[in-house]
Amino acid sequence: MPSAITGNVAGLVLQATQSDAFSQIQDDVLLSSSLWVNIALAGASILLFVYMGRNVTSTRARMIWGATLMIPLVSISSYLGLASGLTVGFIEMPTGHALAGEEVMSQWGRYLTWALSTPMILVALGTLADVDRSSLLTVVAADIGMCVTGLAAALVTSSLAFRWLFYVVSCAFFVVVLYALLTEWPAAAKQAGTDEIFGTLRVLTVVLWLGYPIIWALGVEGLALVQSVGVTSWGYSALDVFAKYVFAFLLLRWVAANEDTVATPGAGAAAGATPADD
Amino acid sequence: MPSAITGNVAGLVLQATQSDAFSQIQDDVLLSSSLWVNIALAGASILLFVYMGRNVTSTRARMIWGATLMIPLVSISSYLGLASGLTVGFIEMPTGHALAGEEVMSQWGRYLTWALSTPMILVALGTLADVDRSSLLTVVAADIGMCVTGLAAALVTSSLAFRWLFYVVSCAFFVVVLYALLTEWPAAAKQAGTDEIFGTLRVLTVVLWLGYPIIWALGVEGLALVQSVGVTSWGYSALDVFAKYVFAFLLLRWVAANEDTVATPGAGAAAGATPADD
Amino acid sequence: MPSAITGNVAGLVLQATQSDAFSQIQDDVLLSSSLWVNIALAGASILLFVYMGRNVTSTRARMIWGATLMIPLVSISSYLGLASGLTVGFIEMPTGHALAGEEVMSQWGRYLTWALSTPMILVALGTLADVDRSSLLTVVAADIGMCVTGLAAALVTSSLAFRWLFYVVSCAFFVVVLYALLTEWPAAAKQAGTDEIFGTLRVLTVVLWLGYPIIWALGVEGLALVQSVGVTSWGYSALDVFAKYVFAFLLLRWVAANEDTVATPGAGAAAGATPADD
Repeated sequence: MPSAITGNVAGLVLQATQSDAFSQIQDDVLLSSSLWVNIALAGASILLFVYMGRNVTSTRARMIWGATLMIPLVSISSYLGLASGLTVGFIEMPTGHALAGEEVMSQWGRYLTWALSTPMILVALGTLADVDRSSLLTVVAADIGMCVTGLAAALVTSSLAFRWLFYVVSCAFFVVVLYALLTEWPAAAKQAGTDEIFGTLRVLTVVLWLGYPIIWALGVEGLALVQSVGVTSWGYSALDVFAKYVFAFLLLRWVAANEDTVATPGAGAAAGATPADD
Repeated sequence: MPSAITGNVAGLVLQATQSDAFSQIQDDVLLSSSLWVNIALAGASILLFVYMGRNVTSTRARMIWGATLMIPLVSISSYLGLASGLTVGFIEMPTGHALAGEEVMSQWGRYLTWALSTPMILVALGTLADVDRSSLLTVVAADIGMCVTGLAAALVTSSLAFRWLFYVVSCAFFVVVLYALLTEWPAAAKQAGTDEIFGTLRVLTVVLWLGYPIIWALGVEGLALVQSVGVTSWGYSALDVFAKYVFAFLLLRWVAANEDTVATPGAGAAAGATPADD
Repeated sequence: MPSAITGNVAGLVLQATQSDAFSQIQDDVLLSSSLWVNIALAGASILLFVYMGRNVTSTRARMIWGATLMIPLVSISSYLGLASGLTVGFIEMPTGHALAGEEVMSQWGRYLTWALSTPMILVALGTLADVDRSSLLTVVAADIGMCVTGLAAALVTSSLAFRWLFYVVSCAFFVVVLYALLTEWPAAAKQAGTDEIFGTLRVLTVVLWLGYPIIWALGVEGLALVQSVGVTSWGYSALDVFAKYVFAFLLLRWVAANEDTVATPGAGAAAGATPADD
């Protein structure tokens, strides 16, 4: 049957990319170590965080704990996808790019899973600061927009200009997130009495998150000043370790020790005439 | 123009898979009946549920009704996608798999649409039990994680080990869902006075949902003890009939008959100093 | 290494579609102008809306403003995706279609990004009308279902019947959205004292949104009474200008001038024994 043969060809061609990526990653110690170190740390974090949250009972504290526990669970899924070659592809860079005409490995799965994991970080931070729902929703929507346009920037091969146009739009979404983290949310955290830990986590998040667009710009996908896929991958992986597991550990340790502070409704809720979540 | 020809080739190759899957499903009575029975039942359920919910007026009851109505709507879309060949592909199983080297039909669309339909089941159950928002959000996030990693498990072709690693991660997300359904939510349902119907639906959900990973493990995608794509497909389809339409019918019938119980805010809301959803 | 060569082939074939689409769009003034006019208007809207919302402070008004600002941000991302060829493909229409056997350019990215932008329109409208959370959630879920099944209708190439089956299911989801906009939400807006502006925006939304399925039915993807991809694209683009930027401008102008009305909780919230969003 000729149509079945065509189907087989399509299947084989598509799956060849996955197997290629898988074996290429396995043969590159620098690259594969950048993935496996995160699989190991995410796995350890899951077990640790379940243990740390065992005595948390109040609603708001459990919400923070639940959102935080999702971070390493999404992360381990993300890195398994990369290491298996499932969410990795080969991109032929457009004319004008430093690696134009070459096939460059693209870890596009990173952008996709950041669209799931970074909202969890923002939900945890926002709940800690007891921000109102409207602000949290807008910031999470902007954050998802940032990741999705980052994915587009990585996948465009038709034109160099469009790669950087998507980069600029992604940064515009990032500015919305930064604005909330730097101006609105600190005020809410102060009212909620969680400003000390919020301040620490905010600095950690803002500084580390600024690293991602910088690595994109300098690495193989951007200006290619760093031309090694392994080094670029380690850049992202190292940021993930601190922005995800260390962040989550600091947050959970504080919540477990200060449950009373987050157990009571934030000052914003008590002061206003309407419920805090209206 | 040579580039247009290349584009045509790419288009033809990709669409060949869809047409192949479509005609292969049409030629297999066992396989196609497993899909069409769900299209018919989902269609009938939509009409029935619209009729059953016509007199529901209170906010919480309408929320349950709305979420429940989405279940067959997502389901009919899912099965149309499978029957048309759009969300079906051919996977070449990796070395070590019982069907290694063979092209196996993968109904990957199932996992994708479960990521939309199963949250609706949990939202309906959670609203019935009047659980707090934090718990509902965490459980829904874990449920989506379960479906997405299940999709990854089905699509990995580079390595048998990675197929099962994703299976294990998917089951870990499932444990979070099970934990909530078995320990936290029954307590909330008791306070809300909906524990009788919640108990019935909980047993139905837990027992049936356990069936999905079992079918995956035994069917063509896992150990391939059952090597028929049609039988595997019927396994999922039969579970869907009970976990979706029967579940939704029992829930809606109860809500229509007991609207007073869900019209009042749950005991949890009344007892605390703050609103239940804070 | 033979496997690396296969990988290159797969990569090249897939990326050929993107480059083809990119150059084909660039060569077609009608088609490319339909995209760039939206990129320009969305960019201008973002700057204008940031400026218009600078003095909005109350929670509910800021929620409306935040959701509204997302509309042009998602839209600019969507049109950049189309113009770069990233979210455009070539579809070979099935037997029975007016263009059967021909390769038709499909702007499938439109459906995907509508699944992100139209919920923002509904969140803005629902918050303006101060509808309860249950209604908003159901309507947003139905809206996403409408876009995803619209995407499926556009991508099915195996069977003409299935294209129209998906079209019907998409319209069924649309009926749920229309029902809420025409019956439930106006009542809520009346209670909230925002019925005048809500009435205007509702008419604008209902009339314009009805245009999308009509264009689908008449254009290249449906009956192909209009066989020009450029004219079909302009149809969608013109609707987007009014349903997105003009809609958002009218809404924001009203919110900025009448912040007091939305600053107070809606009548629904004040009248009931429980908070409105419970």
